[in-house]
Amino acid sequence: MKELLSSDAMATTLAARLDRVAARFERQLQSDLAQVNSLARHVERYRGKMLRPTLVIISGWAVRDSMPEDTEVDSRIDTLAAVVEMIHMATLVHDDVLDEAQMRRGGATVNSLRGNETAVMLGDFLISSAFHLCSSVGLPWLNSALGVTTTQLCSGEILQLTHRGDTALSEATYFEIIRRKTGVLSGACCALAARLAGGADSVVSALHRYGEDLGMAFQIQDDLLDLIGEESVVGKTLGIDLQKGKLTLPIVIHLGRASAPGREETLRAIAACDRTGLVALVRGTGSLGAARERAMELVSSAKERVECLTDSPSRRLLESIADATVERVY
Amino acid sequence: MKELLSSDAMATTLAARLDRVAARFERQLQSDLAQVNSLARHVERYRGKMLRPTLVIISGWAVRDSMPEDTEVDSRIDTLAAVVEMIHMATLVHDDVLDEAQMRRGGATVNSLRGNETAVMLGDFLISSAFHLCSSVGLPWLNSALGVTTTQLCSGEILQLTHRGDTALSEATYFEIIRRKTGVLSGACCALAARLAGGADSVVSALHRYGEDLGMAFQIQDDLLDLIGEESVVGKTLGIDLQKGKLTLPIVIHLGRASAPGREETLRAIAACDRTGLVALVRGTGSLGAARERAMELVSSAKERVECLTDSPSRRLLESIADATVERVY
Repeated sequence: MKELLSSDAMATTLAARLDRVAARFERQLQSDLAQVNSLARHVERYRGKMLRPTLVIISGWAVRDSMPEDTEVDSRIDTLAAVVEMIHMATLVHDDVLDEAQMRRGGATVNSLRGNETAVMLGDFLISSAFHLCSSVGLPWLNSALGVTTTQLCSGEILQLTHRGDTALSEATYFEIIRRKTGVLSGACCALAARLAGGADSVVSALHRYGEDLGMAFQIQDDLLDLIGEESVVGKTLGIDLQKGKLTLPIVIHLGRASAPGREETLRAIAACDRTGLVALVRGTGSLGAARERAMELVSSAKERVECLTDSPSRRLLESIADATVERVY
Repeated sequence: MKELLSSDAMATTLAARLDRVAARFERQLQSDLAQVNSLARHVERYRGKMLRPTLVIISGWAVRDSMPEDTEVDSRIDTLAAVVEMIHMATLVHDDVLDEAQMRRGGATVNSLRGNETAVMLGDFLISSAFHLCSSVGLPWLNSALGVTTTQLCSGEILQLTHRGDTALSEATYFEIIRRKTGVLSGACCALAARLAGGADSVVSALHRYGEDLGMAFQIQDDLLDLIGEESVVGKTLGIDLQKGKLTLPIVIHLGRASAPGREETLRAIAACDRTGLVALVRGTGSLGAARERAMELVSSAKERVECLTDSPSRRLLESIADATVERVY
C-alpha cells in the first residue's frame, strides 16, 4: 500500500490507524479460554493486505477532507474497520473449509491443522465477535447494515454452490455471484465509513458503488491468479476453483466463445483438472484477455464513481487502490 | 408443551404467540434467491419443541404478570424469540456438519442432502439473519447481549472440540462445556426477555440462572438419550457422541469411578463404538443414575431460582418446563 501513498505523512498516519484497528481486532477476540486465544492468534496471521480496513479509513478521510478532526468519529471508523476485517477473516476460514484448502498466506489453514469442525466453529466465533464489536458503536442502523451485508454475502456463497460444476453458467449469474460474495462487503466498507463520517447521501452512495466495483474487479483478478498465478508468489493453494467445480470468469467467457469440439476439449481439461491445458485453450479464444478487460472496466467505473468527491489526496488514493487491484500478482 | 399448561386459555395464547414467532422467523429468512428460500424451508422443518421461544415468551409473562398489556413490549419479545430460535437452528445445522449426522427430526440433514459446504453457508446465513433481525428492535444493549451469548456458545463448542477423545475429562470441565454450549443460550432467552419486559435486575438475574440450569439439565438428558434412547423415538442419529469422541456425563462419571481393568474395558468399548457394551459397563458403576441425579439437581436448582418471582400461572409453567426437561424421551 505504501507505494500508492502520495506523501510519507499520509503513509505514517494510515499505518498508525491500521495499527489501532489491529489492536481493536485482537482485543475483541480475547477469550477467557486459552484454546480460543490460540486459534485467534492463528487467524491474526491471515491478516495480509488489510484492504478492507484501508478502504474504511480512506473512505472516512475522503468524506471528512474539509471537516475538522473528530476523535469520536475516528474511533467509530476504527471499530468498523476491525469489524469488516473480522467478517472477512470468518469468510476466509469457512471458505478454506469449503475449498479443503491447505495453505493460506504461506501458512497452514486452520482446517488442515485442527480439522474442519474447529474451523467451522472458529468462523462462527469470528462472525459473532464481529457483530458484538459492531454493537459497541451503539448505532442500531450500523448493526442492521452489517446484517444486510453478511446475509447477502452468504447468499452469494450459496448461489455459487448451487452452480458448482454448471458449465452453462452465464456471465450474468457469474457477476451476480461475485457482486454478493465480494462486492457487497467492500461496498459496505466504503458506504458505512462514509455514513459514520457524516457524508451526504450522494457521497455515501458514490462510495458504495466504488467499493462494489472495486470488490468485483478484485475477485476477477483472483480468478485470473487462480488460473495463471504462481503458487509461491500468491501464497495459497491454486487451481482450487477448478477442482471444486467453480467456474471463473475466463472459463465462463471461453465456454461461451468456444466451438463445439473446443468446448468438449475444455470440459475434458476441467474434469482432469489440467490447469496448463486449460490455460492454453482459454488463451486460444482470447478469454484471458477478455476477463482482464472486464476487470479493467470495473476499475474505470470505480474511479468514475468517486469523481463527484472533492479532489483530495484521499480521493486520489482511492483511485490508486482501484488501479492496483488489477495490477497485483498476489 | 400443551399438557403442561394450567389452562386451555393459556395454551391458546401461547400457541398464537408461537405462530407469530414462526411467521417472523420465516419472513426474516425470505431471500430474493430461490436457492436460499429452498434451504430456509428445509430448516423450518427442524423446528420442533420450540423450547427457546417458549422460554422467551413465558419469561416475559412471568415478569409482566401484574403489569398492563403492552403491544410494543410483546412485539419486541416475539422478535427476540425468533432471533434465539434462528441462532439455535444455526447451531443445529453446523453441529450436524461437525457430527456428520444424517438425520434430524426424522428427516435428512442439510449436510447429508446438499453437502457440508452448503450446510456451513446456511448456518452462516442463519447467524447473520439472527443478528439482522435482532438489530430491528433498535436497542444496542440487546445486540451486544446477543453477541456475548453467541461468542460464549462458540467458545463452548471449541472447548468441547479440544477435549475430543480426552478420556481424562473432568466433571468440572464437562460442566463448563455444557454451560457455554447449552446453558448460556437458554439463560439469555429468559434474561433478555425479562429485561425487555421491564423486569428488575434481581428478576432478570434469577431468570438468567433458571435458564442456565434448565439448559444444562436439558443437555444431560440429551447425553442420556444419546446413550440409551431409541433412535425411532428420538428422531435423530444416536450414538454420535461416542463416535465423535465426545464424552458425555454418564461416561465421565463412570471413568472416574471404574477400577483400572473396568476403565480399560470401557476405553475398548468406546473405541469399538459398542453402545450396548458401554451401557452395561456404565450401569455397573451406577453412573447412569448418577448422571440422571445431576440433571435432577439442576432442575431443582432452576425451580429454586424462580421462587423470588410472584406466584403466577406463568411461574408455575416455568417450573413444569424444568420438570419436563428430564422426563422427556425425545
